[in-house]
Amino acid sequence: MKTYIIGHIKPDLDSVVAALSFAEYCKLNQVENPTPATIDAINPETKFVFEKFGLTPPAVISASSILPEDKVILVDHNEADQRLVGLNPEQIVGIYDHHKVNLNFSTPIEVCIMPFGSSNTVAWQLFEEVSFNIPPNLAKLMLCAVLSDTVGLKSSTTTAKDRQAVIELATVSDISDIADLTLEIFRAKSNVASLSDEQVVLNDYKVFDFGKKVLIGQLETVEQEILLTSRKAGLLSALQLIKERENVDFIILAVTDILKINTKLLVDGAGEIDLIKKAFGGTVVENILDIGPKMSRKKDISPAIEKALTQ
Amino acid sequence: MKTYIIGHIKPDLDSVVAALSFAEYCKLNQVENPTPATIDAINPETKFVFEKFGLTPPAVISASSILPEDKVILVDHNEADQRLVGLNPEQIVGIYDHHKVNLNFSTPIEVCIMPFGSSNTVAWQLFEEVSFNIPPNLAKLMLCAVLSDTVGLKSSTTTAKDRQAVIELATVSDISDIADLTLEIFRAKSNVASLSDEQVVLNDYKVFDFGKKVLIGQLETVEQEILLTSRKAGLLSALQLIKERENVDFIILAVTDILKINTKLLVDGAGEIDLIKKAFGGTVVENILDIGPKMSRKKDISPAIEKALTQ
Repeated sequence: MKTYIIGHIKPDLDSVVAALSFAEYCKLNQVENPTPATIDAINPETKFVFEKFGLTPPAVISASSILPEDKVILVDHNEADQRLVGLNPEQIVGIYDHHKVNLNFSTPIEVCIMPFGSSNTVAWQLFEEVSFNIPPNLAKLMLCAVLSDTVGLKSSTTTAKDRQAVIELATVSDISDIADLTLEIFRAKSNVASLSDEQVVLNDYKVFDFGKKVLIGQLETVEQEILLTSRKAGLLSALQLIKERENVDFIILAVTDILKINTKLLVDGAGEIDLIKKAFGGTVVENILDIGPKMSRKKDISPAIEKALTQ
Repeated sequence: MKTYIIGHIKPDLDSVVAALSFAEYCKLNQVENPTPATIDAINPETKFVFEKFGLTPPAVISASSILPEDKVILVDHNEADQRLVGLNPEQIVGIYDHHKVNLNFSTPIEVCIMPFGSSNTVAWQLFEEVSFNIPPNLAKLMLCAVLSDTVGLKSSTTTAKDRQAVIELATVSDISDIADLTLEIFRAKSNVASLSDEQVVLNDYKVFDFGKKVLIGQLETVEQEILLTSRKAGLLSALQLIKERENVDFIILAVTDILKINTKLLVDGAGEIDLIKKAFGGTVVENILDIGPKMSRKKDISPAIEKALTQ
């Protein structure tokens, strides 16, 4: 019998590291055989961070790896449509997360959600409460995860707890230059040279059901200008193609410059142009709308889209 | 600005004490001005426990007492239909509970749910984690709440944590005879002499929507036999009357003897007789079905009714 600790589909760095940090927390809580895993290949940013510290990411499993007698703890997500496809919800015994909650279970399970900027800040807080000494190798990964998920503590989702976690995790990790580390992570996250246009759009996306289905891809980059000029035509074609294939009503790509703290939305259709004008105001110039310092899809972008669609 | 800490509608002892225990926990967490309150009058069992120790129950508030700038933390419930009527969900900043979860929020809030037998066991666990010394007066109330909600640690919802909490809360409270205390609480809970037949049926009820609407009242008592003989005719009339008024398809009263660990169902109509026979087997004798040691409406009774209706 194993208790798999798993993040969401298309895992980001926070999700992959959360599987490791919450597995450690589960060990403290006498959870049976906690086994961290990822449910999909890791992205280049995650690969960079693990390689930088000479550490091994958790193994990839599929739904068929999970036996009927196993249990599952979800980290960094709670909603059904972000879960491993084929997972039996009756095997879920716990949830640790930092996102908005949309849950329905027929029996009581353990749920711990804290509204911090990163799942690893939730893990850090739980370790703090039981005065657990985080091993330095885990602390390094958690530090990078918090910096990544809060966009270097600059996202609007950042809380005082995230700042505190970064300071204390940096001390345990013996890392003195947080700004340098942040830039390294940003560069690894931004490195999309090896990705096709379609992969750029789908690198980090969510489909929201606001009555109409809206696919919002987001790319956090240090090369916003280059992407939106040299690869613009290709990205617009990719948006068209994916919209048709995924059968969504609207598709939007948010290109966020994580150094300048600025997001520009790239859209193709007339419907999308009307929608983002209604949601954010301003003028769409050659398929691009500058929405200023709005960085968070969760907090800044999707709520405005929802409001525009439902009012 | 206040942060109200409130339990569910028609509060039981666990819900009322949880407002106090989680308010104490919130103080430790720098929550702004935590203010425990109840949203309805307390029941005789709760009154007895507070009077026994010479303590004052939290004040009763209504939705209009909560100002737009106030915040609210829900304890001992999470689902929308158990909340204070008129409460604006945007004011809810946290949830501490032990029930099954059915939640949908548009922004992240703090959620802590642990599958223990009582909300006060969740509070005890959180106090344990931060090594907080529970004040003896609060410990006494929490002890009674855990004993009440787990029916003296005999309900099928009871966990190892509930047993541990009872032992340690009894030590802090300097209470040596838990069996005696349990019996006192049971007697107070069972004292329905002052209640009308209708009040007996509706003392603790829930309406379940299993395609058909089923109202299940439950009375936990030490006087099961007396109630089902001397007050039987009156209770049957009350069932008829309430069924018509509440416009439900079925109405069932579960009379649970909390010392003998036994539940008998009292029903009036032919439809109800068929339904409980299908759900539990056995023979309905003069409107009564003995379902043996099934004590928990949540875990033992309502799932069997649901199965009988949907299969």
